[in-house]
Order: sequence, then C-alpha cells, then structure tokens
Amino acid sequence: MTDQPAPIQPILGTTTPRFAGSSTFVRLPELRDVDRCDVAILGAPFDGGVSFRPGARFGPMAVRQASRAIRPQYHPQFDVQPFAELQFADAGDVSCNPFSIAESLAAIEARAGELLGPAEGPHPVDGLITIGGDHTIAYALLKAVNRRFGKVALVHFDAHLDTWDTYFGERFTHGTPFRRAAEEGLFDTEASIHIGIRGPLYAPTDLVDDEALGFSIITCDDLERLGVDEVAQRIRSRVEDRPLYLSIDIDVLDPAHAPGTGTPEIAGMSSRELVMILRGLAGMNVVSGDVVEVAPAYDHAEITSLAAAATVYEMACLMAVKERGIPEGRSPRIV
Amino acid sequence: MTDQPAPIQPILGTTTPRFAGSSTFVRLPELRDVDRCDVAILGAPFDGGVSFRPGARFGPMAVRQASRAIRPQYHPQFDVQPFAELQFADAGDVSCNPFSIAESLAAIEARAGELLGPAEGPHPVDGLITIGGDHTIAYALLKAVNRRFGKVALVHFDAHLDTWDTYFGERFTHGTPFRRAAEEGLFDTEASIHIGIRGPLYAPTDLVDDEALGFSIITCDDLERLGVDEVAQRIRSRVEDRPLYLSIDIDVLDPAHAPGTGTPEIAGMSSRELVMILRGLAGMNVVSGDVVEVAPAYDHAEITSLAAAATVYEMACLMAVKERGIPEGRSPRIV
Amino acid sequence: MTDQPAPIQPILGTTTPRFAGSSTFVRLPELRDVDRCDVAILGAPFDGGVSFRPGARFGPMAVRQASRAIRPQYHPQFDVQPFAELQFADAGDVSCNPFSIAESLAAIEARAGELLGPAEGPHPVDGLITIGGDHTIAYALLKAVNRRFGKVALVHFDAHLDTWDTYFGERFTHGTPFRRAAEEGLFDTEASIHIGIRGPLYAPTDLVDDEALGFSIITCDDLERLGVDEVAQRIRSRVEDRPLYLSIDIDVLDPAHAPGTGTPEIAGMSSRELVMILRGLAGMNVVSGDVVEVAPAYDHAEITSLAAAATVYEMACLMAVKERGIPEGRSPRIV
Amino acid sequence: MTDQPAPIQPILGTTTPRFAGSSTFVRLPELRDVDRCDVAILGAPFDGGVSFRPGARFGPMAVRQASRAIRPQYHPQFDVQPFAELQFADAGDVSCNPFSIAESLAAIEARAGELLGPAEGPHPVDGLITIGGDHTIAYALLKAVNRRFGKVALVHFDAHLDTWDTYFGERFTHGTPFRRAAEEGLFDTEASIHIGIRGPLYAPTDLVDDEALGFSIITCDDLERLGVDEVAQRIRSRVEDRPLYLSIDIDVLDPAHAPGTGTPEIAGMSSRELVMILRGLAGMNVVSGDVVEVAPAYDHAEITSLAAAATVYEMACLMAVKERGIPEGRSPRIV
Amino acid sequence: MTDQPAPIQPILGTTTPRFAGSSTFVRLPELRDVDRCDVAILGAPFDGGVSFRPGARFGPMAVRQASRAIRPQYHPQFDVQPFAELQFADAGDVSCNPFSIAESLAAIEARAGELLGPAEGPHPVDGLITIGGDHTIAYALLKAVNRRFGKVALVHFDAHLDTWDTYFGERFTHGTPFRRAAEEGLFDTEASIHIGIRGPLYAPTDLVDDEALGFSIITCDDLERLGVDEVAQRIRSRVEDRPLYLSIDIDVLDPAHAPGTGTPEIAGMSSRELVMILRGLAGMNVVSGDVVEVAPAYDHAEITSLAAAATVYEMACLMAVKERGIPEGRSPRIV
Amino acid sequence: MTDQPAPIQPILGTTTPRFAGSSTFVRLPELRDVDRCDVAILGAPFDGGVSFRPGARFGPMAVRQASRAIRPQYHPQFDVQPFAELQFADAGDVSCNPFSIAESLAAIEARAGELLGPAEGPHPVDGLITIGGDHTIAYALLKAVNRRFGKVALVHFDAHLDTWDTYFGERFTHGTPFRRAAEEGLFDTEASIHIGIRGPLYAPTDLVDDEALGFSIITCDDLERLGVDEVAQRIRSRVEDRPLYLSIDIDVLDPAHAPGTGTPEIAGMSSRELVMILRGLAGMNVVSGDVVEVAPAYDHAEITSLAAAATVYEMACLMAVKERGIPEGRSPRIV
Repeated sequence: MTDQPAPIQPILGTTTPRFAGSSTFVRLPELRDVDRCDVAILGAPFDGGVSFRPGARFGPMAVRQASRAIRPQYHPQFDVQPFAELQFADAGDVSCNPFSIAESLAAIEARAGELLGPAEGPHPVDGLITIGGDHTIAYALLKAVNRRFGKVALVHFDAHLDTWDTYFGERFTHGTPFRRAAEEGLFDTEASIHIGIRGPLYAPTDLVDDEALGFSIITCDDLERLGVDEVAQRIRSRVEDRPLYLSIDIDVLDPAHAPGTGTPEIAGMSSRELVMILRGLAGMNVVSGDVVEVAPAYDHAEITSLAAAATVYEMACLMAVKERGIPEGRSPRIV
Repeated sequence: MTDQPAPIQPILGTTTPRFAGSSTFVRLPELRDVDRCDVAILGAPFDGGVSFRPGARFGPMAVRQASRAIRPQYHPQFDVQPFAELQFADAGDVSCNPFSIAESLAAIEARAGELLGPAEGPHPVDGLITIGGDHTIAYALLKAVNRRFGKVALVHFDAHLDTWDTYFGERFTHGTPFRRAAEEGLFDTEASIHIGIRGPLYAPTDLVDDEALGFSIITCDDLERLGVDEVAQRIRSRVEDRPLYLSIDIDVLDPAHAPGTGTPEIAGMSSRELVMILRGLAGMNVVSGDVVEVAPAYDHAEITSLAAAATVYEMACLMAVKERGIPEGRSPRIV
Repeated sequence: MTDQPAPIQPILGTTTPRFAGSSTFVRLPELRDVDRCDVAILGAPFDGGVSFRPGARFGPMAVRQASRAIRPQYHPQFDVQPFAELQFADAGDVSCNPFSIAESLAAIEARAGELLGPAEGPHPVDGLITIGGDHTIAYALLKAVNRRFGKVALVHFDAHLDTWDTYFGERFTHGTPFRRAAEEGLFDTEASIHIGIRGPLYAPTDLVDDEALGFSIITCDDLERLGVDEVAQRIRSRVEDRPLYLSIDIDVLDPAHAPGTGTPEIAGMSSRELVMILRGLAGMNVVSGDVVEVAPAYDHAEITSLAAAATVYEMACLMAVKERGIPEGRSPRIV
Repeated sequence: MTDQPAPIQPILGTTTPRFAGSSTFVRLPELRDVDRCDVAILGAPFDGGVSFRPGARFGPMAVRQASRAIRPQYHPQFDVQPFAELQFADAGDVSCNPFSIAESLAAIEARAGELLGPAEGPHPVDGLITIGGDHTIAYALLKAVNRRFGKVALVHFDAHLDTWDTYFGERFTHGTPFRRAAEEGLFDTEASIHIGIRGPLYAPTDLVDDEALGFSIITCDDLERLGVDEVAQRIRSRVEDRPLYLSIDIDVLDPAHAPGTGTPEIAGMSSRELVMILRGLAGMNVVSGDVVEVAPAYDHAEITSLAAAATVYEMACLMAVKERGIPEGRSPRIV
Repeated sequence: MTDQPAPIQPILGTTTPRFAGSSTFVRLPELRDVDRCDVAILGAPFDGGVSFRPGARFGPMAVRQASRAIRPQYHPQFDVQPFAELQFADAGDVSCNPFSIAESLAAIEARAGELLGPAEGPHPVDGLITIGGDHTIAYALLKAVNRRFGKVALVHFDAHLDTWDTYFGERFTHGTPFRRAAEEGLFDTEASIHIGIRGPLYAPTDLVDDEALGFSIITCDDLERLGVDEVAQRIRSRVEDRPLYLSIDIDVLDPAHAPGTGTPEIAGMSSRELVMILRGLAGMNVVSGDVVEVAPAYDHAEITSLAAAATVYEMACLMAVKERGIPEGRSPRIV
Repeated sequence: MTDQPAPIQPILGTTTPRFAGSSTFVRLPELRDVDRCDVAILGAPFDGGVSFRPGARFGPMAVRQASRAIRPQYHPQFDVQPFAELQFADAGDVSCNPFSIAESLAAIEARAGELLGPAEGPHPVDGLITIGGDHTIAYALLKAVNRRFGKVALVHFDAHLDTWDTYFGERFTHGTPFRRAAEEGLFDTEASIHIGIRGPLYAPTDLVDDEALGFSIITCDDLERLGVDEVAQRIRSRVEDRPLYLSIDIDVLDPAHAPGTGTPEIAGMSSRELVMILRGLAGMNVVSGDVVEVAPAYDHAEITSLAAAATVYEMACLMAVKERGIPEGRSPRIV
C-alpha cells in the first residue's frame, strides 16, 4: 500500500455532529468518492427467504443509521485505526426483487462478483462486508467470494445451523444457505464451524446432516463453560491460516441484546462475548463477511442495529489487522 | 407406555408456517383431541394478587403466541423428542374471576385437581405445567399437586422469596403463596430451595422467617460466583429423588431478558443461565410445575413471552427425560 | 333458517373473562364445532406480495387476539345480535407457502372455494370474511367468490388503487389484485368503487388506467367535504342490489388510527368514519369480504389490530342484516 | 373571595423548566402548603375493578407527570387564569388496598368526604377533581359528592354505559358504578346523560336497563352528525343549572388519541371534540368530577396521559369560570 | 425553464425497492449530482433551543428515512409531477454546533444564504425547504429568505405562537423566533398568520403581544367550525400574492397524528386537515419553507416522520404549481 | 449519631402501595420534612452537554418514579437498613437553564455547595447523591465536593473516558468533565480509575491523554476475564481509605440492560456485575456520588430508570455501611 494516498476517512464526530451528514456506514465515503477501495460495505436489503418474522429488508438502512453512534477512528483492543490503514467505502445497496428469491440472489452475486472480481484479473475491492437482509444472501455472497478466493474457511455465528434442506419445497431460504453452498463446494468443509448454536431442532438428524457437511459446532452452552478466549482459540485451530469468510447472524446474540431479529432464540451470547471472540481472531486471514438478520421493526432504541453496526466495525478492524494481529497485552492498560 | 399409539405431535413448522394455525402451546393438540394425555399445559390467567404492575392475566395468551417461535420437535442438549416420548396437550385456560382471589384460587385448584386426579384413582394426566397468571396461583396448584403426589420438593426460581405473610391484610397474594403452602404442609420443607433471589427486603426478619419455613437460598450473587453447573448440583443435592415441583417466576431473569413482568429486579439471571441450570436437573423426578408473572404490556418484541415459553418447553423436556436423565457429554458435539 | 337449532354463540365475557379461553375470532366456535355454518371467518397469513413493510403474515393471529376486546353480542346501531341471527364460525388459517406467491394464492383460492362451494351444489358456508395477510390475497378470494356468486360488485376501501400492472415483473402483488381480477372478469366493473384513496401516484396514467378498468373513486379529500352519510349513499347508488364483495385494506385508516400496516399514508379516514360508512351500507347484499394489511410489528397497544377486528365485526353485522337493513333512527336514542 | 390572599400558583415554566421540580399536578402546591383550598386534585390509584386490561393504578402518577407539559397559567378560550381565580392544590393519593374493592371504595369515599365535608359544616375544599384509577371509583366519589351537594346532575363521557349490574357476581366494578349510584339515589336521573357511547353491547336490554335508570345518550355517531356545539347545547339543556358532576372515562377518546386505556373502543372522539364540548359547558355549575381509566403501560409518548391531564385542566377551568361562563366570541381572534 | 435538460428525478420505487438505495429525501439526487437546482431540501439538525422534550436534532435523518414510504412521482390533487417540473435536490445537512445556539443559527443562515443567494446576483437555488431541527432555526432561515426575497408573508402552522420574548434570559429559542424576526423586520407583519394555535398560555398578554406584532390567528377550535376550505380561503385573503414563507411546526398536528414532537398539545389538526389546507393554497407564491420539531425518539412506527415527510412533499408540490395553481375540480374524479 | 431521633424512613410498601403516594426517591421524606439530614438525594435535570441523543433532562423524574419499584428497607448483602442508619432525604431538583451550560453548572455547584457546606463550618448534609442529567454535571459536583472534602478519590464507571478536551470548541460537555476537574485539581489523580471503558475512540492519543491525567482503566474486556471480585479488589487497592467520589454513567451497563441512554456502547456490564462490584466496595469511604445519563425517551418498561434507581440505592447503602463494611459471608445463606 506504499505510494498510495492516505485513505479518505469517515467524517469526524468532533467536527460534524454524528446525527448530521452522510448516511453511509460510519459516515465513510461512498464508493464513487474514492479512487481505490480496499474493502467495500454493501447492503443487501432482501428478506424474501424468511420463515418467521420478516423485516430484514430494512436492515441495511437501519444498521447504517445506527452506525452514527460509533466513533470509528481508533479501536483500542486491536490498537488500529482501520480507516487509516485501508480504504473502506460504502458501496450502497444491491437492488433486490422483493418477490423473487432467485432474481435477488442473482443480483447479489452479480454485484458482489463485480466488486470482488475474479481470482485473476482486476479487483475493484479486496474485501467485502455485506449487511443483510436475511441469511439467504450468504449463498450468493459465498459464490462471489469463492470465485475470487477459492474455497474459504467458514466461521458462522448463529443460533441456528442454517444447513436445512428445503422449506415448503423452496431450496433457497434463510435456513438453507450453507447446505446449498456446501453442495456446490463453495467453502472448505474441513475448516467450517458454527458458533453460538442453541435452541431445539426439527429432528436429531439435523445434527447428523450438519456434521455430514463437515461442520463443527460450539454451542452457547459450550461458551458458558469454555469462556470467550477458549472459543476463539478453537476457532483459530479449526481455521488456521486459510482465507476466512465470517458470516454473522445477529440472532447469535441473546434477544436481550438483539430483540430486532426474525427468529430469536433465548439463551444466546451477550454482545460482549461476541466482540471478545471476534477480537480473539485478530491476525486471521478474514477476506470477507456478512452481518445479517436485523429486523428493525422489532428493535428498541436501535440496540440491535447498533450491535450489528458494531459487529460490522469489528469485522472491518479484523480485516485491517489481518497481517499483524494485535499487540501483546490486548487491553491497553490494566491497573 | 408400550402398546400405546404414538403421541399426536405439534404441527410441524416446515409444513405449516409457524405464524399460521393453532394457538395452543407450541401448536400441540388440544386436550379434547387426544385419547390420553401424559402432561397437560394449562393457562391460569389471573393477576388479582399483584402488588405492583398488573397484567399477568394476559400471560397465558402471550406465552402461547410466543411459543410459535419454538421448533419443539427435538431438544439436542437433552437429546429428546419430548412430544414423541409423551403425549402432551393444551388444556386451555381456567376461567378465573378477576375480582376474587378466593374464587380464582378455588377454580384453579379444582381444575388442576380434576386433571391430576387424587393419589389413588383415575389420573386424566400425570403432570401439569401451568402458565400464569401471577404467583398467587402456585398455592392452588400446590394443593392439587399435594393431593396427587403428596409432599413434593419445591424448587423455586424467583427474584423474591414469596414467603411474606400478608399485604394489606390479604393472606393470598403473589408475595405469600409459599408461606401459605408451608403452613398447610403442602411441600417438603427439607427439600425446598429458592434460586435467583436478589434485591432488597422489607426487613431482616424476612430472611429469618423464610429460613424458619425450611427454605435454602441461592442468590444471584451466589450464581455469579458458583456458576450454573454448581448451582444445578446443589439443587440436586437438596432435592435428591423426591417428586419435584418447579415454580418459576419469570422475574428470576434480569429485566434485560424479561422486561415484561410485574416486579422487576435488576441483577438477575440471563436466560442462558436459567436454561443451563434447568438442563442440569435432567433425570430429576419433576412431577409438575408453573411459569408465572409474564405481564405482556411491559414486554418488547415478545422477548419475555418467548423466554417464558422456552422455559415451559425446557420443563416439558425435563418431564420427558425424568426417568433417564441426559446422555453423557450433554452438548452434542464440541470441536 | 327456520327449524334450525339456535347458533352456537361466542363465549360470553361476563362468564369467562375476555382475556381467557378460545383464540378464535371474538371467541366464536371453531368450524369443526358447528353442524352448519352461515359465515366463516378465515385467516390468510401471507405477506409475500408486499412492496414495503412486511409483516401482515402475523395479521390473522393478531386480529383474533385483539378481537378479545370486543363484546360482540349486540350491535346497537344495526340493532342486531349477529351471532344469534346466523351461525358464524372460525375456519382457522389457510396454510400458505411464505416463499411462493403462486402456491399461496392457489391454496387460498382452494380453501375459500371449498368453503363457499360452487354456484350450484353444496355450500359449506354462505359467506366468508377473510383476515389477511396482504392485499394480494384478494385476487384468490375473488376467484372463489366469483365461482359461487358470479360477477359481484366490488367496494374497495384503501389508500391505494391496487390496480397497478406489475412490480419488478411480478404480476401478483399487493398492488395489483384488482387489475388481475378485472382482466379475468371476476367482478362487475360497472359497480366497482374505491373509497379512501389518497397519496401520490407513480404517474397520471395510474388514474387513467384505473378508470379504464371501470372503477369510481371517492378520495379522502372527498370524504372530508361530503361526510360519511353522503359517501355511503354514493356507494349504495353505485352498487344497488348487486351481490357485494367488500375489500378493506386497513391502511384506509389514517396512520394515527392504524400505524400497524405496511404502506401507511397520512390524511386518511378516522375509524369512526370507516364504521359509519359501513353502517350506511346496511341492507346491501354483502356476500363476502376481507380485511387485510395489518402488520402487527408496527402496531401499538393493538390499536390497529383492534380496528381491524372491529371492522370484521361490522362486516359480520352487515351480513346479518343484509335482508332487512337497519331500523329507522339508526342510533338508538338521542336526547 | 375578597380579602383572601392571592392563590399560590403553579411553578412557572419560564423560570423553572417544566421537566424539573414538583411532581404535583401542573406543579401546583401541595394541599399542606396552602392555607385554604377551593379545589383539590386527588389521586385514586386503584384498578381492582377492571375487566380487561389492568394498569390504571399507575394513572395518577402518569397523569401528574404528563401535566408537566401543560403551561397552565392562562386558558384563552375560557379567557381565565384558573389558578389566580381559585386556590387549587394537589391533595396526593388515597392509599387504596389493591386486593379489596370494598376497602378501596371505603377509603376513597372517606378521603373525598373528608375533603368536601358535609352539606352543612366545615368544607376543607369546595370542589374535587379525582384522577383514577378505574371507573369503579366514581361510585365512592358520588357518595361523597352527594353528601355535600345532594343530588347532582351527572354528565358522563365514556365509550361504555357503565350501568351493568354485576360481573362474575361482583357488584362494584368499573362497569357498574352508575347502576349502584342510581340505586342509591346519589344523582339526579332526570339530569343524567352519557356522551360518547359506542361499540357493541352484551344485549339489547343493556340499553333498556340504562334508559330505565333515566340516562340520555349521545353516541359518537350522533356527535359526527351533530357537531360539538350542538352536543354541548344538548348537555346544557339536559342539566340546566343543577350542580353538576363530570365523570370522564378517557376511553371516550378514540384509541388513536388514547391508546393507554383498559377497554379501548374504536370510532371514538378526537381530543379536539372532547375539549370543545367541555368548553361549551362554560358557566355550568360544575361542582366536582373525575378523569379515569388511564392505563400508562399501554400508552405511547404519554399521549394518553397528556390528554387526561389536559382534560383535568379543562375541568379546572370550568370550575374557575362557573359563575361567569366565557366571553362572547370564545376564540379570541379570528382573521 | 425552456431549453433546460429534464430534471433528474427521484429513484423509482417500481425498479428499486423503496427500502433500498439513497437516503436522500424521497431518494432525490444529491445537490452535487445536478447541474442546476430549482429547489433544495436542506437538513438543519439542531435542537438546542428546545424548552421541553429534546431530540429534534435527529429530525432530518428520520424524515428522510420516512420519506422512503412516499411514491413522489405524481400528486393527483395538484395534478402535478413536481420533480419533472422543477429540479429538486437534497443539499444535505448544515453542520450545527449542538452546544451553541448562536453558532448554529449563524451556520444555518450562512448555508441557506449561500444556497438562495442575494436578491441580485447568482442564485444557486430558487427555493429552499428546510427540515428541522427545532423551531429556533426559522429565525436564521428568515434572515436568508429576507435577503433574497425581501419581506415575505409568513404563514405559520403551529400549536404555539412562538412569539414569546425570552426563556431563562435566552432570546433565541424555539419559542421566540418570530418575535426576533418581527423585531428585525424580516417578514411582512401585515401578511402574517398563525394556523392551528391551541393550548393554554403563560398569560393573557401573550395574545396581546402577538397581535401587536401583526399576526392573525386561526385556532384549532376555529378550524373545527370553519372547515379546511374556509381556512385556506382566509389564508389566501391574508397573504394575497406576496412571496410566501411557510413555517410548519409538526406539533400543529394532534399528538395522535404526531406523537414524536417536543411540546405536544392535544386537540390539534388531523393530517388530513393539514394537507387539505395546504392544497387550498395552490397557486400562491411559496418561495421557501420549513418543517420542524420532529423528535423521533417519541415517535411510533414513523408516523410523525412520515407526516413531516409528506408535508415537505406537499410544500414541494406547492412550489411546483405556484405559477398555475391547481385545475378546477381538484379531486380528480368523484362518482 | 447517638441521641438523635430515629430517621424518618421511606413510606412502607406494605401499608401504602408503591404505585401511590410520594414521588420522591424511594418515597423518602423531602428535605424540608426532616430536622437533620445525613445524605441528600438531588436531581440535576440538565442535558445541554450531550453530543448524541439528548433527553437526560428527564432523568431525575424518571429515576424517582422507577424507584417506586424498590422496597428499600433492608439490603441483605450489605446487611443494612440504610434509612434506619442515616437520615436520607430528597432535596428536589436544581433548576437548570436548558440553554446555558455555564449557568446550569453554576446553579448545580451552588446548590450542591449549599447542601454540603465548606470543609469547616455548618454542613446541612454530609453526603450527596445526585441524579443526572448528563455527565457534564459531574464537574460542578466535584467542585462542591472538593470544597467540602478536599481532593477525593474518583471511581468512574462509564463506557467512555470523559476526559476529552473540547467538542466544537465547548470546554464543558458530557465528554470532558474529568479533564476539567483534573485541570483544576479537584480530585486525587493518584487514586482515580475508570471502570467499564469500551468502544472505539477518536484517536490513540485519547488513551495517552487520559493516562497523563493519572487515571487507571479497567475495561469491560478486563472485567470478563477478571470477574467482579477481582475488579472490586483492584478498585480498593487503588483508592485505599481516601474519601471517595463515585461517578456512575448508566451507559457503563450494556444497552440490553440500559437502552435508555444517550451514547450507548455494546459489550458493556450486566447490572449484576455493576452491583456486585459496588458491593465489593463496602467499607470504603464513599462521601458522595452521582448516577447520570438516563435518557428516558429511549427506555423500555423503565428498565434503565430502574437500574439507575437501584444503583443510587446501592450507593446509599455504601454510605450507610462505610464505617463498618459488610459482614463476613456477604450473601446471607448458601445451601
């Protein structure tokens, strides 16, 4: 990144109030405003794959607005100024068809592919963080990611497995993206893991089927017993230095922390657990990711949207520190 | 249970959407739809015993609606399909008199007694899970349970002791059921315990009086230090193999997890702690129970109702596994 | 109706509290509980045709729960005890496919057709009031109604015309049902009218196209100037004694009265205006109808669901008085 | 009122911000702070007589807090500075027993009687405006009012008649106060009238029974046709110059204007209609009154509590102008 | 406007879903995206002048998001496609200083002045619609408007006079802008009028002082008696063909229609009344205007923000039709 | 405290329902009602120093109302009846100027100084707990505290450092009080510590600057790893037996526990963690403190206000036990 101009950074909250100005994610520049872009933030406002509470189509809009609350310049645990290290930009939304899963997946795959480019050849961006929308979109995103990066590791934070086969005959829904992606070999099943799983299932075979696809599981009950550092360590061991795709369903958080989602499950993670696990992944080779399933109509005081925005931000920092990890003694000063 | 027809199970969410169809608890059959019933779910919509925020009269309705969010077929931590093991059915609501505590308690006791039957003789059902309603109803339920099972152990999850004597001269309120029940010898005071107690009290004698009734206490501060597994172990040691009645006031959860209740106390349990303690009781002889004090008018995005519904479901699973406990290595797979 | 047993009526609120017991509409009997049924209440929980805020899939559930607030025995303006005049019953929900507009429309048409029967032959019911769901379902319902009653008059209360052609290439959405129905000749375009239209449009041709389909329009601005009685009179003149289908989008109400809907438009009707217009239709030959577009996630204190439930109830009364109208001096006593 | 010191007025919002300071009604002095008191504001936080949504026990607290929004010094339509004309004071709350209707009614009657005094003899106050609480309390208040003023006229704003006989055997509930009061001859049935009645009834006999008690009725449908000035005129004709008790159930307002109440009925009054009718009563001999049935748990942005507080304020102004009415050309200036 | 390229219009909802894409007002182009601009939409996120509930700093953001619900292409009552007639663009927000009224007013005046330009000389835009923020900003806006257009007529929709002198010694607050503006001769006091005034006042002199500034008043009680068409006619008579500034405080609406505001007053306008009065001003010479006092934290389901957005849109249409008025027979078709 | 009359205690909830009566904090006597006062509770309703969501001006009112939920007589973990040990009283609110930071700080300092008195001389009270209001007020409070107690230790619970220099040129805001206080030597920088810090910062220098002021930091990530008892121990080691000022920004809690605040940060403390750390400080020499930044408009079901009220109560208990600490075996009984 030598010889490049310094990145255009988000608008600073001490000069323009955070409640004013740009509606981009953390008030980053728009993609059209930058000459180069390392990582793009993309909205995928689609919720046609939802089986219970709809509304995630308003997720990108709500997460961007909630991101105003974030002062994003410096992350002390990572000791990084992510937007000074890399050029991030907001690429706006994919225009999905609310009445067609197939068309919407095609549009998302096309736009993500256009941004990431193929493995060989021009790469408008080197990484992509997508704000959903429902989890159906992960399938389209993995297709584009696979075309660019090949078989990635998949670390999937969610209350649910999302490896079911079909609902009402429909193969592409928010409960099935990783089954479809596995069938098509889009990720490395030796390096895939679900984090935060909980709640009852349709049948014991759900777990058998999931395991057959190669997934490991760390449940929320496991987290209670293992603690955040051990969970992070197990993820690191599972993934090693593979290129990594992070897919984070906001319902991995407990409904107390994320009421605004479509299929809430009690007994989930706290937001502190989520970010501390993510911080434990510093130095891993995160190439892209998504944060999905924010349904603002069920939110209160924007706490879910804010949690999602902060998760996107942690992911951005992971991408900014991926070549160096975080310094010894993560937390800056302890008495 | 040999030679019996397979239970009629809840409607499956993959064939009829969860937002459609029956309003029974997890879309179970109604009691009139089954030939036999092992465990009945009963609503007791009464809140005339409440001293602060009323509204728990809408609890049964709200908990049933929120239970739509649950896919109840298989519980992986218990490794059980509860509704395939036992026949559960929804017995509807007791018709209480909103203006009379005495009449309502009589109606609840009568209906519960009719369902459970006497110790000797015909037993329409073998277990009963009641959705409140305020905690006053526990007294009536314990009377019916005592008539069927004799002196049961009592494990009581709550922020409050509920062993006060009277309020404004009234002996039967949501703060007094266990004093009344103890006075009448309805449960085994050698095997009774409060879990989750916190918050200030009227006087130091509150604790003295409570101890004199035989109760042990595990406070929420204790839980923070002991952890869920140790708490579960202490409950097991206290109760041993006695027939056990579980009475769960949803305010045992922190207001972050259960805002929709009448007498919230901060510094409570997370929903994860609650279900993990309950899962730690697998194999205990749970004969009946209640989940009370959901006041939907104070809820948001149904998170309280959902927590209560999930708690009823955990209780149902406990009843389904009571003769075998749960398999070794509770959480199905850990990487 | 001579020689028939008296109808089974809703549970009475003075003997079983309204917050207890059955979750059917106004606690009517279920369809399976009656020997005959004059009018069925049907839920159609489908919102896959929505272009803005989704969530109407939870409409039937919410409207039934809100109907608990209604004491439905006697309607003084109509001077009728509707459930003593006719046997009403709750026919439950159609099981729709949330991922397929086509399958859902087919399922709704099939279920409505099964209930209403063909023009000649067995008629399980003589009338149907359907609770949506989004307005897409009106097309399917009109197909079934047309098969039974032939070309009906259509009185359509809505903020929007719903006669657009396609959205994103999709022909069956909540903005297009009456275009499709008109194309197929399902209703009598000489006797069709929109009431409550307001808000901007995509193009001037929207009105031209709508007029070409034969519709008349009474806007909300017209209502402000004409008053409720004159509006009712114009509807009567337009429809005369034709068999009449009433399709009521709850967004005909102002957002103050119905915040819980998908495409709110300010400057709408008050709920008083809506029911007074409906009461002005007494004696008209209402054969069936729908109340749609309740999106409970956006509601507050159930005011939208209650308005929808009360509208269903007014429609039920219209069906009960259709052969006699209402007595002179509609409002019972004026000082 | 000559030779008396000027009244102690509410705290002025231009010197102490309205969000600061006293929690009395419109920041009036407490009763203990004044040497004499013409009219007292009393809270009656009791909701044990409620048949549907409870919560009005929090009404007095919420209405007082919402009254902060009012700048109460000068009412332009009445052209009066009510708190300069008469000494008003906040008399705090009656301490009711939440578990006993009988004890609570006795306590309210005692406190109101203590304040108003008997017809002959010392009168601590000359008028009383009570904030409920549910409508059950009106019975107790009318007893005290009757003892002081004899048979008063009764103008009753409500969606419901409140002249039912019993619920679940209970004679004193929020649906029965005026039947009980009529039976005991507490008001003048020749001069009693319900305003704002709407919604269905239990039976046609409800109206017959009500008429037998002597009540006239102006329904909300009548109001739509008559307009506010004619309604006010009919009330004046009915009551003439009798001492008048005003009993206002906040559910006389439409749920759009008052969602925070226990038994909402659609198709109600707007708040503008309510206050304009009240203003039309200027000069009538209002001796006392109540505003009841605010259930804050169902409110939003305090709109119901604010409507109730403003209604109490209008009532205060009526009492301040009762000897002179309002000037010609009510509204001060029209272009 | 001949020989100019056709305006760039808002994104069309039938091709890009309204919940996707641009966060500008009704998804108009940004100012930087157009070569010329007739009317700019400007945000002024400042609420430091608020005396009761703060939060209007989030108004511009919320109104823009709510404007997504509007399909803005064609307004049937005005029979206009405003964005085809004139080039509108979103000029973003003024960056105010939340801690300084003086600096914020200066910044707003500077930005508005920069856009409108002086009377003689270059005019980047010919009209400005500003979204507040609290009403304090109107003073700054009138300064810029005065510099461009000279003494304008002022039509002020509000519950409050906003002509008080000082609060706590502060001369520039949301209750004083029109006193300050009058003192500086910024508008034509012969052609100024308040519409929608209601609620009590600090003193009788409030009205005297206001009248001394030259204002006429139409209260909400007047509106109830006069009707919308007569109110519009009186405004027209008062203003005649003067250049007109429209200042609309959203609290002119009743709290039922606009709960999300800082100083709600009951007994206000319905949104239908507001827009019908505005439509009655068609053909008047509206040169600029503002819509202020949306406090989203108190809103529900965006109904206030939507009402404000729709009001901005009506104002935009007024500016688009100002040279021709609206066609005879305003409402397009009446049966 | 010998020879003094027993303190006047809060109204008891078993004799007057908690939803009735006094609006003082936990229904304590007002300051004017007591002859002497050990500790006063003071409201400081000011939010003019807020950089993001305003509304904390309503904090004192909301916290007092929420305090009704507390039964404050006996705290079992501290084994103290605080209001029997010391005379507490509610001193009402400081009347702040919402338009002037300087005047408001002066008013708060004056009132706090008047209550606490100087080091030598008459002391109306010996301790002060102030309810904010935004954090700007801490500067004024520290000035008064310093005048009475000299350089105090400062234990600061917050998500944010609040040691920034200026915002928009303003030196006194809610992000700068401790920088200003340090500059003026108001507290002992050798004994100052921030607890609960988290979230991103403006720049790495934020930490450097903060450290230069002498502060230690325990972040929320540290808390996750250290546990509550170790955190309490580190605070004790840092402060030792110095007079201690506790400043608690409610946003130290996670948004799940405290949504109703102005600058929420995810990944915060649970309310259980907060109170257990506070309980771990028993015996320390707490001389005064504040609880700030409750913004009720963003709260739900009063959970934030209740958490703040309970925090004030814990602080009151700390002051009541400061000379003796808490007994061995803190939690009264463990099975």
